[in-house]
Amino acid sequence: MEIAKLGEFGLIDHLTNDIKMVNPSTVKGVGDDCAVLHYEGTETLVTTDMLMEGVHFDLTYVDMKHLGYKSAMVNISDIFAMGGTPRQIVVSIALSKRFQVEDMAAFYNGLRMACEKWGVDIVGGDTTSSLTGLAISITCIGEAKKEDIIYRSGAKDTDLICVSGDLGAAYMGLQLLEREKMVYYGEVKKLQEKIKDPEQLSREIEKAWQPDFNGKEYLVERQLQPEARGDILKKLREAGVHPTAMMDISDGLSSELHHICKQSGTGCRIFEKFLPIDYQTAVMAEELNMNVTMCALNGGEDYELLFTCPIGDNDIVQNMEGIKVIGHMTKAEYGLQLVSRDGSDFELLAQGWKHLS
Amino acid sequence: MEIAKLGEFGLIDHLTNDIKMVNPSTVKGVGDDCAVLHYEGTETLVTTDMLMEGVHFDLTYVDMKHLGYKSAMVNISDIFAMGGTPRQIVVSIALSKRFQVEDMAAFYNGLRMACEKWGVDIVGGDTTSSLTGLAISITCIGEAKKEDIIYRSGAKDTDLICVSGDLGAAYMGLQLLEREKMVYYGEVKKLQEKIKDPEQLSREIEKAWQPDFNGKEYLVERQLQPEARGDILKKLREAGVHPTAMMDISDGLSSELHHICKQSGTGCRIFEKFLPIDYQTAVMAEELNMNVTMCALNGGEDYELLFTCPIGDNDIVQNMEGIKVIGHMTKAEYGLQLVSRDGSDFELLAQGWKHLS
Repeated sequence: MEIAKLGEFGLIDHLTNDIKMVNPSTVKGVGDDCAVLHYEGTETLVTTDMLMEGVHFDLTYVDMKHLGYKSAMVNISDIFAMGGTPRQIVVSIALSKRFQVEDMAAFYNGLRMACEKWGVDIVGGDTTSSLTGLAISITCIGEAKKEDIIYRSGAKDTDLICVSGDLGAAYMGLQLLEREKMVYYGEVKKLQEKIKDPEQLSREIEKAWQPDFNGKEYLVERQLQPEARGDILKKLREAGVHPTAMMDISDGLSSELHHICKQSGTGCRIFEKFLPIDYQTAVMAEELNMNVTMCALNGGEDYELLFTCPIGDNDIVQNMEGIKVIGHMTKAEYGLQLVSRDGSDFELLAQGWKHLS
Repeated sequence: MEIAKLGEFGLIDHLTNDIKMVNPSTVKGVGDDCAVLHYEGTETLVTTDMLMEGVHFDLTYVDMKHLGYKSAMVNISDIFAMGGTPRQIVVSIALSKRFQVEDMAAFYNGLRMACEKWGVDIVGGDTTSSLTGLAISITCIGEAKKEDIIYRSGAKDTDLICVSGDLGAAYMGLQLLEREKMVYYGEVKKLQEKIKDPEQLSREIEKAWQPDFNGKEYLVERQLQPEARGDILKKLREAGVHPTAMMDISDGLSSELHHICKQSGTGCRIFEKFLPIDYQTAVMAEELNMNVTMCALNGGEDYELLFTCPIGDNDIVQNMEGIKVIGHMTKAEYGLQLVSRDGSDFELLAQGWKHLS
């Protein structure tokens, strides 16, 4: 269905009319000039992210539902990275004419799946038009007790450095999707030369997207459907571990370590052999002739948690499933160091994942 | 200066390093995964707006400073429209390569001017790249005592309908700017035919933007530099008037009245003769052969306050400077009516300003 048929207000109604609020802190959701929230005796956390078509996502291989899911999840991840509990999101979308009501419904389905997973209410937003691509902006609001908030600036020079899950898989997933896109473009070109009837051509082009992800499903999932690590935060709480600094890994481990070291006034020393890397990530890097350590250091979008904790917690974190101790903080004058498998020291560069290839 | 020279983090530092926080509720601003806010015993208000180049603004005649100012002000306006006090904003921007550090600095100057006017802190955001135009998304956070919040749904069928300031001027300003743009495009075309040297051409094109706003400055200002009406809210408070429903007029009076009537379960009756219209608006409409009443009803972006209040407040609001009583609410079955100057009744259509011309 054409969006113009419903109009802006009709579309918003269509997308939001059966959204139920689950948080007592949500006083009023969609439908007025503002959402109204109520927080008693806690701090409010606010984070925002903007996603642009062609820069942050490619609709050739990302469907609208996954896009909605990821858009919400990356913001939810920022709230966990502060030690908070996500409560509400507001969603702004700018759409060009090629999008249909069904596309928006799929996007909202994805949003809602992510929000339901973490008990987050969708409380407002703005739906508008765009001359070119799709633009998405999401703001997530959460809460935390003052003493539970984990800033980037609290690391001490003797703290351990830990990461959750594994690294580099989302970046390898992106490489895989890009490779399959190139295969698809080749097929499309062949079809365009062969088939003259525009309707038949369009049908055949639709059928031509048959990517081969065999044995690499994990990588694709990590790229398309990242998960915020609220479970890790909960585990740490339950074990009595109080991280001294924390961030989620969106730009890549190196880049995030630079932020934490800068704000905490420390250096760090991490070990190549301790970096958690999934088997599929290693295989894919091999296939693409890429250095898997570089992928783990600089590939972004894993949305795992990077945190530091006192050395006294060593026994706990060493034995915690899903957590890997990868090194320790140092005095600032030692800089940021990576110790390679053969024991050599390298300076850790924060090149960011976009400049990796 | 090229933005690439500073990099994303350098740019953010450059733009935000001397921002001072003025609100006690701002615990932590820019520089971590989230901003941290603290509200004690009040409700939190959240509103968001997205502005896309070519849809919401045209950089031919909007400079970056005005754009920043307006982007912040339209969000601040939504907080006032709920009866709240704006406290913080987060700002997301997606930029294409043609923008320079100086453009962003001008944009932030505008943002800061608007924020300083109303004591609002800039506490975070996201700066990213765009393949095509400029996209801006701003979320504003405010607070209000529970009993001070003014929803759209509280109007009674005997209430008065009031608006602040005057209507239609921003829309006339837009028409004027569009007209001057056409004149400019004509000049540019002539220059392109005459001058072959690209450097000289570029200099001459820059000089060719000499719009004639003589006697129409007010209209241009209303379009480029709208003001949120926190002053009106304050006046109403001081006079003891408690609006029963309120909105800011962004899409046009008709459209906003439809929202209030729908949510309050009422009809309304407004009078053409009472619509506040500035002299310059009337002259410009005449010049363009447009119906000035239609401009006042459906021209958007005035950001004036539309509110309803009990009929007992009639004496107060009738005598309040900057407020005009334009009609009254009715039972829902009477629908939405406009009484023309000659006393005829017309149904009030909510066509929205985008479809006006």
